[in-house]
Amino acid sequence: MRERATTASGVDARPETTAAMASSGTSGGGGSPGSPCGACKFLRRKCAAECVFAPHFCAEDGASQFAAIHKVFGASNAAKLLQQVAPADRSEAAATITYEAQARLRDPIYGCVAHIFALQQQVHACMPSLILRVHEITTSTS
Amino acid sequence: MRERATTASGVDARPETTAAMASSGTSGGGGSPGSPCGACKFLRRKCAAECVFAPHFCAEDGASQFAAIHKVFGASNAAKLLQQVAPADRSEAAATITYEAQARLRDPIYGCVAHIFALQQQVHACMPSLILRVHEITTSTS
Repeated sequence: MRERATTASGVDARPETTAAMASSGTSGGGGSPGSPCGACKFLRRKCAAECVFAPHFCAEDGASQFAAIHKVFGASNAAKLLQQVAPADRSEAAATITYEAQARLRDPIYGCVAHIFALQQQVHACMPSLILRVHEITTSTS
Repeated sequence: MRERATTASGVDARPETTAAMASSGTSGGGGSPGSPCGACKFLRRKCAAECVFAPHFCAEDGASQFAAIHKVFGASNAAKLLQQVAPADRSEAAATITYEAQARLRDPIYGCVAHIFALQQQVHACMPSLILRVHEITTSTS
């Protein structure tokens, strides 16, 4: 059985919003003048003013996060994925791409799909109770 | 609002097992002698006997599925991702990688994380009913 970080309920402990993902370090602010962003730091290259990664991978934690992206998607593909969304949406896209990459490294077979399966099981488990509750409410009010 | 394929319940209509993913065409059987597998067909290259993609991308539907993988992960990265898991697990890995790639093309900002968010909302919505139901059962039997 492969190791997987799960809570007692069996669901991977993961942030429930991209804001939560971002607060764990994905949202950066890029490299300050003279210092590269986390992505360029990892890639050991000069961070250009128009660097697509800079606003989303900070100089401190961004390099380790970008390492996962580099390994799973590749820097070039990740840049293309970010460039094809509107600038206002890139922060969310960077957070979800980082999440997917880290999940794939943690679980090379299922990646973040493991989380989807676990949540689907939770929904299946509690859906009958919800249906019964709705039935009880509609019966008592009719 | 970006277009997203959802059911009436708000959750993306997606397969709930990798077997279901595979049955939608990811599981292949590779190229027959003389004809390339779906991946090599897409890449317009000769399909070697030891091709890592061949068992998972059939000659018929595999090419269109591999197109998504190629665009999101890149062929080289996808090959590395498959090679680092045991051969017995590669079919599941190919199915989840294909799913993630297709989800990212469908939803460039959230990818399959959109599905995770929708399921988390469903769990949150039905959890109080489940807790209440458990409370009712334990009260009636005590």
